[in-house]
Amino acid sequence: MEITAYLDMQKKRVDKALEALFERELSREYGRLAEGIRYSLLAGGKRIRPVLALAAIEAVGGDGESLLPLTLPLELVHTYSLVHDDLPAMDNDDLRRGRPTNHVVYGEAAAILAGDALLTHAFTLLSDPVYDKVLPASRRMEVVHELSSASGLCGMVGGQFLDIVSEGKNLTLPELENLHRHKTGALLRASVRIGGILAGASSEWVEALTRYGEAVGIAFQIADDLLDVLGTAEELGKAAQKDAGKSKNTYPGLVGIDRARILAEEKCREAHEAVAVFGSKGEPLARIASYIIERRN
Amino acid sequence: MEITAYLDMQKKRVDKALEALFERELSREYGRLAEGIRYSLLAGGKRIRPVLALAAIEAVGGDGESLLPLTLPLELVHTYSLVHDDLPAMDNDDLRRGRPTNHVVYGEAAAILAGDALLTHAFTLLSDPVYDKVLPASRRMEVVHELSSASGLCGMVGGQFLDIVSEGKNLTLPELENLHRHKTGALLRASVRIGGILAGASSEWVEALTRYGEAVGIAFQIADDLLDVLGTAEELGKAAQKDAGKSKNTYPGLVGIDRARILAEEKCREAHEAVAVFGSKGEPLARIASYIIERRN
Repeated sequence: MEITAYLDMQKKRVDKALEALFERELSREYGRLAEGIRYSLLAGGKRIRPVLALAAIEAVGGDGESLLPLTLPLELVHTYSLVHDDLPAMDNDDLRRGRPTNHVVYGEAAAILAGDALLTHAFTLLSDPVYDKVLPASRRMEVVHELSSASGLCGMVGGQFLDIVSEGKNLTLPELENLHRHKTGALLRASVRIGGILAGASSEWVEALTRYGEAVGIAFQIADDLLDVLGTAEELGKAAQKDAGKSKNTYPGLVGIDRARILAEEKCREAHEAVAVFGSKGEPLARIASYIIERRN
Repeated sequence: MEITAYLDMQKKRVDKALEALFERELSREYGRLAEGIRYSLLAGGKRIRPVLALAAIEAVGGDGESLLPLTLPLELVHTYSLVHDDLPAMDNDDLRRGRPTNHVVYGEAAAILAGDALLTHAFTLLSDPVYDKVLPASRRMEVVHELSSASGLCGMVGGQFLDIVSEGKNLTLPELENLHRHKTGALLRASVRIGGILAGASSEWVEALTRYGEAVGIAFQIADDLLDVLGTAEELGKAAQKDAGKSKNTYPGLVGIDRARILAEEKCREAHEAVAVFGSKGEPLARIASYIIERRN
């Protein structure tokens, strides 16, 4: 199967499961808030985090079908981070995935609360007793710890803070790498680790997934920076060249477009090497890594 | 022991445990964010939520000493809600517990992120494998579910949304009760339920704690509204009479001061009745209920 067809198939599975979330709450007295949550959650992203988790489950021989609901918290956390990052006090973005951002449509207060509810619901989902039959609590508790650690002060939230305070400053390459290891890398790394934990992989295999996740995390960020420099707003569904406009630190800005490309390819190779241990079952993970540095949006 | 002395003793135990949180992170490159988190977390509240959980643990014969760390997530979630509620886009408050609010000191972006990190850390704490020896994962998973359900869209976050959209509207008494059942009631109810769950109480006893928590939740809110009408800024450490200034819906505003007092006393009596089943071990819970409607700040 072509990697784009594989990704599309997995994305559709994830989308279908996400569709069912916050649906009953639409009819409640705070239904408008549920509507705002669904506006951002169902805005049609690539679902790369749950898809990575599913590919990791597949790589270690787990059952992606029954475990799929437990990969959704990754998308909930990712979506909450986008809603909060777009806020006027943060990155102040009006456009996301080709549509007005949450606070533009629902107002700032509702956007803050929508983010809060999305983050909180990630843990309501993981702890739902309905999954006791799918996976023992001890295993899901590991996922709670992995997800919350990757998302909190020492992970994504710390990274977003570093990003904000770095604006207008010139970072060194190690500083930039540190920023992205927190801001985007931690959750991508957690995505494949969570896949491994859900499927009951050995610590050795979780270690291989971790190496893959770390390499892909950096490759992903470089590719994102390159797209911002080279892409058009039409392809991206958001304003292009906005990084330079805000004097954000980027890989191409720091090391040039050509070296950034080489760096991304290096990381992609590292990712391939890490998942070689899974043989043909690791194939989707390997091809996702390649796709990430070649994608156009 | 006088109830004020009891509360002070329990508060100090909680304070001491909270002091240790986010301490190592102060030296990290995102140390300023850790500082902002500690600014709000260690601002000296009454710690009523963990204290209620500890009193519930005591009531059902559990070990408050070893379980104390697992009551802290309640305070983390409460603090995050205060930081976000104070934001300009929400209640726009400059003063909290006698000090400038988080966003006034650290800026709006850092305040949003501090709240996010506090909420996330509640779940990092509960899932920390260091507590595997204290309490099996299955029991802590119940706490994750209780806490996240009470805090999310169908609990506190939904209540805050209702509060915001109700400003300037005249609510009926059932609507006002519904608002507070979500906004403040859900987490207070969860506090005693979590105490019961942590201590391994029977479902019958958790049910009694739930009735207590629901009654105390309403009594607490009425007392808060009465304090706002009758108290001075000096006693409160925040602006008094601000509810009326913002045309917020309050119990005294809706039913008058006298009927509001009678309602609070009724709820206090209900709380007493609910914990009678615990005999003398339920004494602290009963006295906390009385204290709540008599307090001056």
